[in-house]
Amino acid sequence: MYNQAAVLHAPHDLRIEERPVPTPGPREVLIEVRAVGICGSDVHYYEHGRIGDFTVTSPLVLGHEAMGVVVGHGPGASRHAAGTRVAIEPGVPCGRCTECRTGRYNLCADVAFFATPPVDGAFARYVTVNEDFAHPVPDQVSDTAAALLEPLSVGLWAVGKARVGPGDRVLITGAGPVGLLALQAARIAGAGHVVVTDVNQHRLNTAAALGADRTLRPGTDPFDDMRADVLLECSGAPSAVSTGIRALRPAGTAVLVGMGPGSDIPLPVALIQNREITVTGTFRYANTYPAAVALSASGRVDLDTLATGTFPLADTEIALQAGRSDPTTIKPVVIPA
Amino acid sequence: MYNQAAVLHAPHDLRIEERPVPTPGPREVLIEVRAVGICGSDVHYYEHGRIGDFTVTSPLVLGHEAMGVVVGHGPGASRHAAGTRVAIEPGVPCGRCTECRTGRYNLCADVAFFATPPVDGAFARYVTVNEDFAHPVPDQVSDTAAALLEPLSVGLWAVGKARVGPGDRVLITGAGPVGLLALQAARIAGAGHVVVTDVNQHRLNTAAALGADRTLRPGTDPFDDMRADVLLECSGAPSAVSTGIRALRPAGTAVLVGMGPGSDIPLPVALIQNREITVTGTFRYANTYPAAVALSASGRVDLDTLATGTFPLADTEIALQAGRSDPTTIKPVVIPA
Amino acid sequence: MYNQAAVLHAPHDLRIEERPVPTPGPREVLIEVRAVGICGSDVHYYEHGRIGDFTVTSPLVLGHEAMGVVVGHGPGASRHAAGTRVAIEPGVPCGRCTECRTGRYNLCADVAFFATPPVDGAFARYVTVNEDFAHPVPDQVSDTAAALLEPLSVGLWAVGKARVGPGDRVLITGAGPVGLLALQAARIAGAGHVVVTDVNQHRLNTAAALGADRTLRPGTDPFDDMRADVLLECSGAPSAVSTGIRALRPAGTAVLVGMGPGSDIPLPVALIQNREITVTGTFRYANTYPAAVALSASGRVDLDTLATGTFPLADTEIALQAGRSDPTTIKPVVIPA
Amino acid sequence: MYNQAAVLHAPHDLRIEERPVPTPGPREVLIEVRAVGICGSDVHYYEHGRIGDFTVTSPLVLGHEAMGVVVGHGPGASRHAAGTRVAIEPGVPCGRCTECRTGRYNLCADVAFFATPPVDGAFARYVTVNEDFAHPVPDQVSDTAAALLEPLSVGLWAVGKARVGPGDRVLITGAGPVGLLALQAARIAGAGHVVVTDVNQHRLNTAAALGADRTLRPGTDPFDDMRADVLLECSGAPSAVSTGIRALRPAGTAVLVGMGPGSDIPLPVALIQNREITVTGTFRYANTYPAAVALSASGRVDLDTLATGTFPLADTEIALQAGRSDPTTIKPVVIPA
Repeated sequence: MYNQAAVLHAPHDLRIEERPVPTPGPREVLIEVRAVGICGSDVHYYEHGRIGDFTVTSPLVLGHEAMGVVVGHGPGASRHAAGTRVAIEPGVPCGRCTECRTGRYNLCADVAFFATPPVDGAFARYVTVNEDFAHPVPDQVSDTAAALLEPLSVGLWAVGKARVGPGDRVLITGAGPVGLLALQAARIAGAGHVVVTDVNQHRLNTAAALGADRTLRPGTDPFDDMRADVLLECSGAPSAVSTGIRALRPAGTAVLVGMGPGSDIPLPVALIQNREITVTGTFRYANTYPAAVALSASGRVDLDTLATGTFPLADTEIALQAGRSDPTTIKPVVIPA
Repeated sequence: MYNQAAVLHAPHDLRIEERPVPTPGPREVLIEVRAVGICGSDVHYYEHGRIGDFTVTSPLVLGHEAMGVVVGHGPGASRHAAGTRVAIEPGVPCGRCTECRTGRYNLCADVAFFATPPVDGAFARYVTVNEDFAHPVPDQVSDTAAALLEPLSVGLWAVGKARVGPGDRVLITGAGPVGLLALQAARIAGAGHVVVTDVNQHRLNTAAALGADRTLRPGTDPFDDMRADVLLECSGAPSAVSTGIRALRPAGTAVLVGMGPGSDIPLPVALIQNREITVTGTFRYANTYPAAVALSASGRVDLDTLATGTFPLADTEIALQAGRSDPTTIKPVVIPA
Repeated sequence: MYNQAAVLHAPHDLRIEERPVPTPGPREVLIEVRAVGICGSDVHYYEHGRIGDFTVTSPLVLGHEAMGVVVGHGPGASRHAAGTRVAIEPGVPCGRCTECRTGRYNLCADVAFFATPPVDGAFARYVTVNEDFAHPVPDQVSDTAAALLEPLSVGLWAVGKARVGPGDRVLITGAGPVGLLALQAARIAGAGHVVVTDVNQHRLNTAAALGADRTLRPGTDPFDDMRADVLLECSGAPSAVSTGIRALRPAGTAVLVGMGPGSDIPLPVALIQNREITVTGTFRYANTYPAAVALSASGRVDLDTLATGTFPLADTEIALQAGRSDPTTIKPVVIPA
Repeated sequence: MYNQAAVLHAPHDLRIEERPVPTPGPREVLIEVRAVGICGSDVHYYEHGRIGDFTVTSPLVLGHEAMGVVVGHGPGASRHAAGTRVAIEPGVPCGRCTECRTGRYNLCADVAFFATPPVDGAFARYVTVNEDFAHPVPDQVSDTAAALLEPLSVGLWAVGKARVGPGDRVLITGAGPVGLLALQAARIAGAGHVVVTDVNQHRLNTAAALGADRTLRPGTDPFDDMRADVLLECSGAPSAVSTGIRALRPAGTAVLVGMGPGSDIPLPVALIQNREITVTGTFRYANTYPAAVALSASGRVDLDTLATGTFPLADTEIALQAGRSDPTTIKPVVIPA
């Protein structure tokens, strides 16, 4: 048994390397990785070597949308039999701080999160994870779908924050993978009318195919009068934040999911006050995997459609670049096994 | 223009009578009724002349699941053009009390509710209602579906009280019209696994056809280990209340929708405490019609399937008795026009 | 019986004029005004003739923090006997729109609000108001305190939005009348530690006397490490918004109460996302008067301390200018009777 | 260093025994116990040898309302310096299950809770506890008050469940220690009017001294018309549950805190439905200690008044019997050191 991983040494310097197979620690399982989705953050690390304050200062394995098969157990690990297919929840929090104790473990300051320096990720044949963060998936969920439970979790978390409910009018700005999963999550939660905006017509077409009631390019069609109950901002564009908030009804809710430039963004504070708009943001997710597994198992969500190509581990770099050249790329998936 | 109504004089004494066409008051519209669903409460009034403290002491027109076409306007009514098809929200609250001011107008003590003594209902050719409680429906919503937005509102309200969300495990006890609509509402709200119980196999089959993941007869199949997130009790049977609560996970929620015997019911209080279960009940609904209209207009709910027969006004009494003889009856609909 | 009012004709042009005593309309009561607090918005109208989009284009009576005695009844008004002392809730909403029906009537687009063009306010001997918006006060609540239930409502609403609860750490930026009432409301709601900031040392002293655990001038003492549960921003200063948000713990809540410049304000969006901060604002209040009356009646709030001077109606202009020359001014009160 | 503990062998068979000083495990601290309040559950175990399904089958040390001084550290324990005075949160959950991960760790099925068979409690000179469940208290909080942060937590949790807020009308049935702390917690949370009922006049007097606005004996004074926002049921008496629920306003909340007979209790289900009452119960508490410490440190709560007698460890049995003979007993405190 040997391990192999795609290791980022510097921007645009990704090398396939042999590494020792990791030894699972207490309550950890060893997982043979079967599928890993490529996230925008992976691409950003690959291209820039950093995201905000997180900088790649030593070689790093990327990839955090992963699933695989349990093939080994560390001391005390007993939840999953060998051979179990599991989706990997990639952030293991400390379990002790105020955030963990109050159930918002996604905000734990001491979380170890895959592919976030200095923690290695899942573009590898073998990884380990705490058994409590390995979620068994039934046969009807494909390998790809199991990996994409991670970005689905992002969508579910956003929809939960926004308290989307039956009949709600939802505006989603940005139809990349996160926006498309927010769309599906919003539909699952009962949204009655969903409008999706993007500059990429192909993505709008995909949104329409996945159930958007209306799609439009920002700037061309006005939607100020939409009186949306909820804005799910998935583009990160400052203009979308501001425009989207203006499209909300009184007492509406804006959830900022897409990562923006990092600097301060001008917001229409007087309007937020006069309409008592609620603005919040999401950081990853917590306690979403059980729902994500149940929804994919019952066929209520379509994840396989989002996968626009599979790549062996050796072609991870090609997968990371797929989106730049081809506007129809949504979610490339690396198959390490 | 003449009016005709089915008037209850005493238990099992329903007479078709000519009455003056009502004159719409300030901000009221006159509606030509097109469809009226029969509710269990209509049947109960017909058979017993009373429900709880509400007693039929003078002749009463039943029927409160109604829709029709606007054909006249009272002073100041301007919201709906003549000819507009509208679903009728059958309870008009005072608009002034604490309940109204805080948005829970369904609990207004001074509400005037169709077919609740002494307020007449909709088994008639013409009725009036405050224009704010007439909700326009688009063409793709059938007359029957528009009438059934009323019981759909009951289901949506229950699901809202229970805060059903994506992936939730929901137990629905009772698969009568309310249970079947609660089922649809729960699915719309994202339920990941729905179990429905009833003693009537035909109703269980309908539940399965409408998306229940599992159906069962109480007593035959245990579901104590279901660890449901939510119980929607739609049968009114005391045993279902108690059994259903025991099937909830810690911190689960029970919403009592079905009307029971009226007397006190023994509840497992120690379990409610030890698991911190929340128990609440529903009384009609508030602010559900906009969502109900949107969901039916977009095809996310199937109401027509529930209508198991249509009857002219002259046959209202037959419609009221349809359920007793035929176990496949779900929702008879009276067509007064 | 004659009426007299302080009428604003243009910036700095306030005239005491005789006007007819108003005739109470349906369900309205005629009130002899006893006390009216001066709000920052009154001063702003007096000095600039406008606030945001609201412009004084015809002569306007200012004043909306008012109480008085019922001395007349319009048709159908029966709630309050003549002689009843009442606090006036100065905004009467339409009662019909979505906002009204869902309990957030403060966001009603058709509200008639005292002293907001073109609706006259309460710097007058007599005013009328819908009887449902006249709240009786018991003897132990002074005239001044009854008038100040209005700004207390602002504080209670902000604290309610923020869900301040027992033990919470609360940061209040700005110690003007709104900040001082937010302070009292936060203490009432159980705040365990309250920090108040202001540039005016006298106001900080008042805050300390009213129960602030710590007071400080912005810029001199850092409070980044406060890890506040809640920010109640009561200054309107853009720098306070941004600085205050940075002082919040993960998943903390910022409520923007103070009115700022109206233009967009740069907010730390990445931090709002990474910490999942909730930002919202308040616009007036809804359903706060019953609590405000109860709390003042039971002595749990101290409103009289905030009144820093009383003025006859003839001196309304002096009262409006009191704050400019004297930094110890908090809340001047006009006594029209 | 030797240990000494009060060990329950059978009902009414409590023996002071020498035991080895416990060795703190990983991340545990050794605590020299300074004060332990006596809870009704301790008395119940002492008298009956069991509570519900929990049976004393082997010798058990009682006591779970405890505080002391850190005098030793297990491997990896580093949070508290030796000599730190700490309140002991007596339940250490597993940290891994769904309940723990979602923040409701009080419902963890694998919790190890002091004085709950087979886990020993704190009527001893030395105990150990996970350092995360030892909460430092400042000097101004007395030993007794620090011990009583445990029952205060029960009150705060109940008030939190009920969402008591400023101005609320609260009915508290039962003025034992839990009721008196619920009273204080309700006042802290802003209750505007608190009614307390009990059959014991001395306890009613204490309730009045602690801020109850009205006290009364059940049966003598009616309070059906109270229209309470919240019922905090702290007696466990089935009649109080039912009577209390009837005193609630529409959409009011009943929180059942007092432990009753364990059998099913008849509840007014039709009223719960017609008024949309919410009924829930509490089981211990979660995440309350930071607030409890802050409130006691700032003087916003009075715990010392509740302590009606201190007893050395040797007199633990006398302390357990104090309440039976003396109706003025509220909370006896054992001082082991």
